[in-house]
Amino acid sequence: MGNDELILLNYWPSMFGARVRIALEEKGLDYEYIEEDLPDKSPLLLQMNPVHKKIPVLIHNGKPVCESNIIVQYIDEVWHDKAPLLPSDPYQKAQARFWADYIDKKLYDSGRKITFHKNKEEAEEGKKEVLEILKVLEGALGEKPYFVGENFGYVDISLIGFYMWFHAYETCANFSIEAECPKLMAWAKRCLERKTVSKSLGDPKTVYEIVLKFRKRLGLD
Amino acid sequence: MGNDELILLNYWPSMFGARVRIALEEKGLDYEYIEEDLPDKSPLLLQMNPVHKKIPVLIHNGKPVCESNIIVQYIDEVWHDKAPLLPSDPYQKAQARFWADYIDKKLYDSGRKITFHKNKEEAEEGKKEVLEILKVLEGALGEKPYFVGENFGYVDISLIGFYMWFHAYETCANFSIEAECPKLMAWAKRCLERKTVSKSLGDPKTVYEIVLKFRKRLGLD
Repeated sequence: MGNDELILLNYWPSMFGARVRIALEEKGLDYEYIEEDLPDKSPLLLQMNPVHKKIPVLIHNGKPVCESNIIVQYIDEVWHDKAPLLPSDPYQKAQARFWADYIDKKLYDSGRKITFHKNKEEAEEGKKEVLEILKVLEGALGEKPYFVGENFGYVDISLIGFYMWFHAYETCANFSIEAECPKLMAWAKRCLERKTVSKSLGDPKTVYEIVLKFRKRLGLD
Repeated sequence: MGNDELILLNYWPSMFGARVRIALEEKGLDYEYIEEDLPDKSPLLLQMNPVHKKIPVLIHNGKPVCESNIIVQYIDEVWHDKAPLLPSDPYQKAQARFWADYIDKKLYDSGRKITFHKNKEEAEEGKKEVLEILKVLEGALGEKPYFVGENFGYVDISLIGFYMWFHAYETCANFSIEAECPKLMAWAKRCLERKTVSKSLGDPKTVYEIVLKFRKRLGLD
C-alpha cells in the first residue's frame, strides 16, 4: 500500500491526536501532518468531521476517519501485516477495548476539572478522581510491562498521550503522580523509551504553559 | 462451539442490554438470562463488572465481557461464521464504529434530561438535543434500509434499543418523533419486523410507567 495518501489533522497537545501519531509511527507509515489552529478551525477540518468538528482526523486517500480510538483500530486493520496493535484473540481484544473505553469515559473529564478548575474545591475533586482512575489503571496493569499481554499496544496507546498532561495536572492541583502510582509511572517511562512514542508527544511543560494561557483567556486566573 | 456457556446479566428496560440480546439472537445462540434488581445489584454482577458495576455483562464460559458495544463486537468476532454484524471492510467498519460511538456519547444523556427533568426548561433542552441527534442520525441513514450498507448490523443494534424509550421521551416532553423524523421511524419499524429485535425489546408503555415510578421515588413529580 505504498501509494496511500495519509493526512493527519491534529493539534499537538491533544492526548487523542497523540494516539494516531503513535499508531502511524508503529506501522512505519509516512503522513502529512497539518496542525489545526483550534479556536479557528480550518474549512478542511469542518468538511472532514462535520459531526464533531474535532481533531484528530485521519484522511486516507481523501476519505476521513474520525475519533482517535476508531482511527487507531482502522490503522491496525488496514495495515494488519505489521506491528499488531490489538490482540488477535477476541477475549483479549474485548479487554483491550474495555480499558481504552474506560480511559475515554473517565480521565479526560476529571483532568479538565483540575486544569480548568473554577475554585480549589473543583481542583481537589479533579485530583481525587484522577488518582482514583490512575489507581484502577495501575491495578489493571499489574506486574505486566504493558496493559494487554507482553507487547506495547492499543491500551498503552490510548493512555500514554495523557502523559503530556500529567505535569499540568500535578502542578495545578499540587500532587505527585509518581508518589501515588509508581508502577504506572514506570510503565509511562517504558513507553517513552519507544521512539514511536517519544517523537509523537509534545513537551509537558509547554502543555502547562498553554493551560495557564487558556486559564487567563477564560478569566479563571 | 456448541458447549459454550453464556449468561447475560441484564435489566430489561436497558437500551444497552437490548443490544446484547439482539446480537445473541442474530447469531442464534442460547443463553441463560438473569434479570438484575438494579438498586440492589447481585454479588455476581459486582464480581463480574467490578469497575463499572453495570449491566449488561455477558459471561462466556465463566469470563465476563462488559460494555454493550464491546460485547456486541466480541460476539461478532467469536461467532464470525454466521450473520456478520460489522462490515468486513475496514473503512465501513470505522464508519459503523463512528455512528455507534456517536449514539453512545450523545443520546443517553440527552434522553435522561427529558425523563428525569427537574423543570420544564430541562425537559425542553433535552427534547431539542434528542431531536438534533435523531436528525443527524436520520441524515446518516439517508435512503438506505439500514445504517451501514444493505444489511441489519452494528449501528442498527446500537440504536434500536432506544426505541423502547421513545414513547417515554415523547410523553415526558410532549412531541412526536414520527412527525419530526419519519424516515428514522420507518427504519425503526423495519428493524422491529425482525424477530431477533422484537423479542429483545420490552414494552415502551411499561418503560414509561417505570420512568413515572422513578420520578416519584426521586421526588421529581
